[in-house]
Amino acid sequence: MTTPEQLAALRDVATRLRIHSVYATTEAGSGHPTSCCSAADIVAALFFGGMHFDPKNPKNPANDRFVLSKGHAAPLLYAAWAEVGFIPVEHLLTLRRSDSELEGHPMPRVPYVDVATGSLGQGLSAGLGMALAARIDKRDYHTWVLMGDGETAEGSVWEAAETASYYKMSNLTAIVDVNRLGQSQPTMLQHDLETYKKRFAAFGWRPLVIDGHDMLQIVSALRKARRGKDAPTVILAKTFKGHGISFIEDKEGWHGRALKKGEEQDKAIAELQSKLTGATGAKIKRVPREKPLPPHEPAPLDPPNFKLGDMVATREVYGDALAKLGAVDPRIVALDGDVKNSTFSEKFLKAFPDRFFEGFIAEQNVAGVAVGLASRGKVPFASSFACFLERACDQVRMAAISMANVKFTGSHCGVSIGEDGASQMALEDIAMFRAMADCVVLYPCDGVSAERAVQLAANHAGMVFIRTSRPKTAVIYESHHEFALGKANLLRHSDADKVTVVGAGVTVYEALKAYDLLKAQGTLIRVIDLFSVKPVDKQLLLESARRTHNTIVTVEDHYIEGGIGDAVAAAVSPEGVRVHKLAVHHIPHSGKPEELLQQHGINAAGIVEKVRAL
Amino acid sequence: MTTPEQLAALRDVATRLRIHSVYATTEAGSGHPTSCCSAADIVAALFFGGMHFDPKNPKNPANDRFVLSKGHAAPLLYAAWAEVGFIPVEHLLTLRRSDSELEGHPMPRVPYVDVATGSLGQGLSAGLGMALAARIDKRDYHTWVLMGDGETAEGSVWEAAETASYYKMSNLTAIVDVNRLGQSQPTMLQHDLETYKKRFAAFGWRPLVIDGHDMLQIVSALRKARRGKDAPTVILAKTFKGHGISFIEDKEGWHGRALKKGEEQDKAIAELQSKLTGATGAKIKRVPREKPLPPHEPAPLDPPNFKLGDMVATREVYGDALAKLGAVDPRIVALDGDVKNSTFSEKFLKAFPDRFFEGFIAEQNVAGVAVGLASRGKVPFASSFACFLERACDQVRMAAISMANVKFTGSHCGVSIGEDGASQMALEDIAMFRAMADCVVLYPCDGVSAERAVQLAANHAGMVFIRTSRPKTAVIYESHHEFALGKANLLRHSDADKVTVVGAGVTVYEALKAYDLLKAQGTLIRVIDLFSVKPVDKQLLLESARRTHNTIVTVEDHYIEGGIGDAVAAAVSPEGVRVHKLAVHHIPHSGKPEELLQQHGINAAGIVEKVRAL
Repeated sequence: MTTPEQLAALRDVATRLRIHSVYATTEAGSGHPTSCCSAADIVAALFFGGMHFDPKNPKNPANDRFVLSKGHAAPLLYAAWAEVGFIPVEHLLTLRRSDSELEGHPMPRVPYVDVATGSLGQGLSAGLGMALAARIDKRDYHTWVLMGDGETAEGSVWEAAETASYYKMSNLTAIVDVNRLGQSQPTMLQHDLETYKKRFAAFGWRPLVIDGHDMLQIVSALRKARRGKDAPTVILAKTFKGHGISFIEDKEGWHGRALKKGEEQDKAIAELQSKLTGATGAKIKRVPREKPLPPHEPAPLDPPNFKLGDMVATREVYGDALAKLGAVDPRIVALDGDVKNSTFSEKFLKAFPDRFFEGFIAEQNVAGVAVGLASRGKVPFASSFACFLERACDQVRMAAISMANVKFTGSHCGVSIGEDGASQMALEDIAMFRAMADCVVLYPCDGVSAERAVQLAANHAGMVFIRTSRPKTAVIYESHHEFALGKANLLRHSDADKVTVVGAGVTVYEALKAYDLLKAQGTLIRVIDLFSVKPVDKQLLLESARRTHNTIVTVEDHYIEGGIGDAVAAAVSPEGVRVHKLAVHHIPHSGKPEELLQQHGINAAGIVEKVRAL
Repeated sequence: MTTPEQLAALRDVATRLRIHSVYATTEAGSGHPTSCCSAADIVAALFFGGMHFDPKNPKNPANDRFVLSKGHAAPLLYAAWAEVGFIPVEHLLTLRRSDSELEGHPMPRVPYVDVATGSLGQGLSAGLGMALAARIDKRDYHTWVLMGDGETAEGSVWEAAETASYYKMSNLTAIVDVNRLGQSQPTMLQHDLETYKKRFAAFGWRPLVIDGHDMLQIVSALRKARRGKDAPTVILAKTFKGHGISFIEDKEGWHGRALKKGEEQDKAIAELQSKLTGATGAKIKRVPREKPLPPHEPAPLDPPNFKLGDMVATREVYGDALAKLGAVDPRIVALDGDVKNSTFSEKFLKAFPDRFFEGFIAEQNVAGVAVGLASRGKVPFASSFACFLERACDQVRMAAISMANVKFTGSHCGVSIGEDGASQMALEDIAMFRAMADCVVLYPCDGVSAERAVQLAANHAGMVFIRTSRPKTAVIYESHHEFALGKANLLRHSDADKVTVVGAGVTVYEALKAYDLLKAQGTLIRVIDLFSVKPVDKQLLLESARRTHNTIVTVEDHYIEGGIGDAVAAAVSPEGVRVHKLAVHHIPHSGKPEELLQQHGINAAGIVEKVRAL
């Protein structure tokens, strides 16, 4: 039981959180004080009793996890960490300054933030990932996700909701701060808590409807949530935006607006301060101190086991390689969006069912869950058709900003998938992943390079995209061939080469065919398998260009913008190398793979023609 | 009432649809016959009585609209158009061939497909767009969307659902073919129709649960759906995958698998043919013939009304320009994702409330609705923060494949937004939109160019992305300045220029400042405002490079990959021009805009330093 004195103390904490949020945003001259005020009571109750954690070490593995999905309430989060003693209170006034770690929205540059938030509707997926990690690791920490009501409009929330209940994640609680007001107008449901309740209940959650400014109700709901069985709990808290500051409370036009220094701020602070009672007894529920996990030591792996000329699809090798890796690296987990029999992630599922998450046809949530898993030390590999990973573009962007150690594998790239047609062909995926901050992009062409790509991805600390192909291709690398991030492979060269041709994936084979055709006509070309699209092997590209009249032809199964041609041109353009791109220019049609490569001029004949024209 | 004879005739149609689907996919050697079989009864009832349309003219504006959201059932759609007489039945056997318009998934290259489908979970948003168009145009056609059950896992479905009920779209009906089986395993809910019902009901829809193989129930539900009031209707049809072919019906492992020629196909066809009764009386419910709308003639517009030096944000001009355009072009509609007071689309809302769709925080649906609106002749402008448009990447991809006449405007691009931090900064948006097939990308820097960008977008038939900025910038163009797609603007030049500097948006001003600084030091540079990122002004770039020692420096508020630097390099690289890129290299921090431009080396000082180094 919580005593009246303790409740009063929690209310005082909440009031102080509001005061801190107002001071910080006013000092910064921007921010979202009203969005902090609506959730202040909830956050006070979470940090003082609701959550079990180590206030001295936010990274303690035994801690409950907290995700502030409504990231614009960042000042409230910082205020809470100040109230528990982790940040000096006066430091809160550095909010949003370029020399302060207290950024406008939460960033994992600070130890108490696991995943970046601020693009709404993503926190629940991340929380689900954390809860799944707890299950895999047999840990009893609880994961709490504080959401805004406006963000429940995001479909990704319902993707997370449906899968969290499907997997009976009773160690996950969502709290929705139903403050009625969005940025530009009231939300669709405003204070219709009954409909929120029906929606979450229909999605398999246990809904608790409370007054989000009644401390006793909040405390009681948090307790019930932790004791949930067989289903995740959602606390639907009716609140008022700007609560505690009467002249802005529940008023439109106050989203993302700091109070002005002087009269406006003073009036708000005075009103808030008048509520303080001086009650004591707000207690943190501490967990035992725990050491962090030791750093992972990659275990030795047998080399790939292919014979030159073996016909195998890189997508299939992906599954085998992941299963092989899973046997020596317990951090590896896999996720898929109901295409595991096409991406071949099912091979991992068969080997390690407890470390596989079937995300169904909901790619945004798959990506978000991967980010949550990575934040708990897992190395998640999430796969789908490459074009459907574009569904999760914003989640991938936030994963990049989170500096998350996640791996995405996209199969069925390009026109070489053939008959299924344009909707199933990824032709923009390299552009998307290449533009993501610090994302490595690997594009293997054969079995050996595909297996090595998976290993390189697992052992690289950071985001990686692996692009796999549908058709079977011949193994061209010896099993002991060394691959590395940023290293391309020179496949054909002589002292008399006229042009350097750079391919990747299926176009490597077209380049090799073109080599044979041109050689028969007396023209020699240099052939490079790019393999690592980002980082790109500038050195080899430049060296090769220097020996081939400063001329490179790139050929790729991707639209002409943003793919390997652009990657190569960007690398060598400062040196004045001429780069000619062969790529897909228009929306493809259904057809046989070889017909489509021909139609788009990215087959051997297209390369020969281009080389001869040069 | 439907007579028993008519019901028998409808059942025969359904059986023939199954037969056609089997023949076509077997002949193609790939495809999804079992996904066709589960929905065949529904489609038979829709095309013969349920839908009101002109079977001779799929483009008749009075027709009901049909969206096959489960696009992998394309053979069923083609079979239906064969049964109504629009396609010769024997032509169905050309399915998936490169010389046939009957592609693997529906593409709007054929007149009876309005929007490309095949990326699941997008059809309902498109249908909502069509239904909104009907409301705007005061037309009484009904829109029908046939979905798979697996795709209801996509969050975008619930985004469409919540907004369709919010707007009381009783002219919209979704039909969910609940066949229990996904691609790689059973769906989450399998045949739990009760939960589907609860979910749709909670999202404000009127649910009708039926046996999807009982023709009387189907016909009756379609009738009820058309008579719906105040809410959209969903027909939840319990079906079996592969229904009608007993040896594959309701069996796992049959997704996306054609029957083999010979015994396997013969057995299936024999079983299906045995069900045919020869009943007649299946009737199409026809609508009157109507002429298509006359082509749009752009009305004359007053030129922009700014004075040189006026300080105005391009995002704000966007709103003004759109409202101005709306007054002379009734096709224009606007959509936003609850940031209309930041993107300034609210200016259009104020002028034309009936042509504005508030999509709340659900960007995927906003994009999908735009595609649906465009398919009915509207010219939709959808706006959000540029980074949040990335949430709709896959919808934008499908819009491109649909060749949809949609316009996206992304505000708050780059580090120049300042204090809000990385999660709110679009730094990959140009890469994303540039890679989309045939998408025009415009990046205005001042009021005049912003207004012209909106006009150019409206008058271009196809997808356009306009990137607007948060900070106010000085007007640098005269109001009569002529802008065009693919045309950059030369702002500073002389016969003694050392380097060409290309900027866009806020970096144009940094380039101009650098010009002044360098000039004071005796170095002249050429300054170009790129404006049109795609298509790019290759001619001006090459001419300028030729006069500046073959050297270009690009400077952009975007990550270094896939943005204007790559666009410029791609254009001039074949000619051996040296392109040096200044861009954002790492994840930005919160801070003042000018601090961030400085930190990332994309301000005047960074340009001066680079030019001096060259």
